[in-house]
Amino acid sequence: MRSIWFDTTDNSVKVIDQRKLPHITAIEKLESVPQVITAIKDMYVRGAPLIGVTGAYGVYIAAKNIPDCKSIKFYLTAECQKLKDARPTAVNLIWAVERVFEKLNFSADIKDIINIAKKEADAIAEEEVENCRKIGEYGLPLIEEISKKKNGKTVNILTHCNAGRLACVEYGTATAPIYAAFDKEIDLHVWVDETRPLNQGARLTAYELEEKGVKHTVITDNTGGHLMQHSLVDITIVGTDRTAYTGDVANKIGTYLKALAAKDNNIPFYVALPSSTFDWEIEDGIKDIPIEKRDPDEIRYVEGFCSGKIEKVAIMPEQSAAANYAFDVTPARLITGFITERGICKANKDAILSLFPDKR
Amino acid sequence: MRSIWFDTTDNSVKVIDQRKLPHITAIEKLESVPQVITAIKDMYVRGAPLIGVTGAYGVYIAAKNIPDCKSIKFYLTAECQKLKDARPTAVNLIWAVERVFEKLNFSADIKDIINIAKKEADAIAEEEVENCRKIGEYGLPLIEEISKKKNGKTVNILTHCNAGRLACVEYGTATAPIYAAFDKEIDLHVWVDETRPLNQGARLTAYELEEKGVKHTVITDNTGGHLMQHSLVDITIVGTDRTAYTGDVANKIGTYLKALAAKDNNIPFYVALPSSTFDWEIEDGIKDIPIEKRDPDEIRYVEGFCSGKIEKVAIMPEQSAAANYAFDVTPARLITGFITERGICKANKDAILSLFPDKR
Repeated sequence: MRSIWFDTTDNSVKVIDQRKLPHITAIEKLESVPQVITAIKDMYVRGAPLIGVTGAYGVYIAAKNIPDCKSIKFYLTAECQKLKDARPTAVNLIWAVERVFEKLNFSADIKDIINIAKKEADAIAEEEVENCRKIGEYGLPLIEEISKKKNGKTVNILTHCNAGRLACVEYGTATAPIYAAFDKEIDLHVWVDETRPLNQGARLTAYELEEKGVKHTVITDNTGGHLMQHSLVDITIVGTDRTAYTGDVANKIGTYLKALAAKDNNIPFYVALPSSTFDWEIEDGIKDIPIEKRDPDEIRYVEGFCSGKIEKVAIMPEQSAAANYAFDVTPARLITGFITERGICKANKDAILSLFPDKR
Repeated sequence: MRSIWFDTTDNSVKVIDQRKLPHITAIEKLESVPQVITAIKDMYVRGAPLIGVTGAYGVYIAAKNIPDCKSIKFYLTAECQKLKDARPTAVNLIWAVERVFEKLNFSADIKDIINIAKKEADAIAEEEVENCRKIGEYGLPLIEEISKKKNGKTVNILTHCNAGRLACVEYGTATAPIYAAFDKEIDLHVWVDETRPLNQGARLTAYELEEKGVKHTVITDNTGGHLMQHSLVDITIVGTDRTAYTGDVANKIGTYLKALAAKDNNIPFYVALPSSTFDWEIEDGIKDIPIEKRDPDEIRYVEGFCSGKIEKVAIMPEQSAAANYAFDVTPARLITGFITERGICKANKDAILSLFPDKR
């Protein structure tokens, strides 16, 4: 099962409500732009590539719902703006919505507009699958080399949040090299940061790895530094929500702390990404990538499974304030390299642009 | 209310079961060594100074329960060993138990042994209160200076875990300078790391600060680095469970990550401690301080308040493994200084020993 798909039995776009995983697998049908926005904002779907693909299908859904109106272009422009505004940090959302929008010919028949939107959204989904597959291919030798150096002893990989198939459409970004290495029967083990507040690591990455049979251990977000100090991590691989073309990476809050620890212990720190995650305009990630602040209730309460249902427990005094920054920015200087669908490169402008010369 | 006290109404040692705070205030009577061990092991009481004081009262409780036996010394030695083994990382436990034990005259009357044990435990408790008060006095100028530099604008302090009055007997260690500054009406605000897995920050530090009226905001453990990058933290103050005389600090898991971020952003990183937390024998903290591994269920489940009672929710797949390292070691090179009951010093052997020449 993909994380998003077009269901031909009822001609609708479907996603998994990932808020409920791993406890409950609930499938949601997306039929209107408000539904798509809710799915993105409330994180039924999350992860930069999947947010992008969902946004792309959002344009198709917007087109399907075009009312009688004077200007289709005006209407769809407004709907697309709403889609692009659903979450601020992942650049894939803007990129994917604009890519579909730009394909549309507004003087065409509404049916044609709908078809073109769907075709383009499908194309983006397939491309992201292929990009992730290639990230796996290019990342695999990194793990193979460590395995060789360790004479086949377990390779320990640390990852933060979920940059797995559930964050994408298939394979994942950070997990793609892991799955590729697993398929080649390399002995490996993944340290899974639980990733508060929403525990995407504990809930989703662990679920994915378990499903596939990859050895893994869930740890608190506090633990990675200690493991690195004691040579229990060989490589760190994470995803990214937006990557400045200079190499700064906005990813799930806490990524920066792991990058610091990796640097302090000489452990390679890689970021895996499809090129849709690059922001070709932002130079200074720390200064200029917008960081989403989410509902403090995500800090106040922890959701989990209890007596057969999902419950929410309060973990702090009611009167205390809480703040919920969803991402942080890891400066390029802490990153060993990027694993992209075009190969591996260093985290600097020249290296990135030599892999993507079309963006110069 | 102190965190531990001798109740003269029924001649018993009492503690708060801190596992239930801030939701429920439950008082526990400690009447036997197994009860004391459970209170320490299961973390009814926690925090190095409080663990020490509880251990000290544990010797008194052991003495009170001396059965008819050939050798009181043999019996109490064994009981003290059990107490010292209750938790491995906080050195205060060993220190306090041994200090009381060494006061005892085994040829004396049992009643006298009991009295001496109680007197020494009382003395340790009072000394730790006074130590914390002095830590506040010595730490205060650090906050005052920042306040002056900022022309009275809010001083933002980040702390990890709970090194507050609940970790001690009164005042706290990391919180003592904060309370002292608050009492002097310095405008300040505390960023409280929630501190997974047991959320001592969200549950206890927030509760203490709220009780006192100190402005504070609970954040996930992932957040501190981002705040530091954006100049939202002026100083970090934490406690310690065991401090090598060379300056390495074992404190709640995740402390090391915050120290790295403070260093990377030129933010002062202080550790506040009574001298009972020094280990005068350990030179290399990372290599030699024993790090407790606790029950993985503390990772698998999160406890919180729901519909009027404390509930436990599962946050990860049942089949996945989890690992629970309780502490990490922050190397001395990342620490700006120590705030002790004898004043402030740098985090190195010479500076520490010049403050504690009796330990040379």
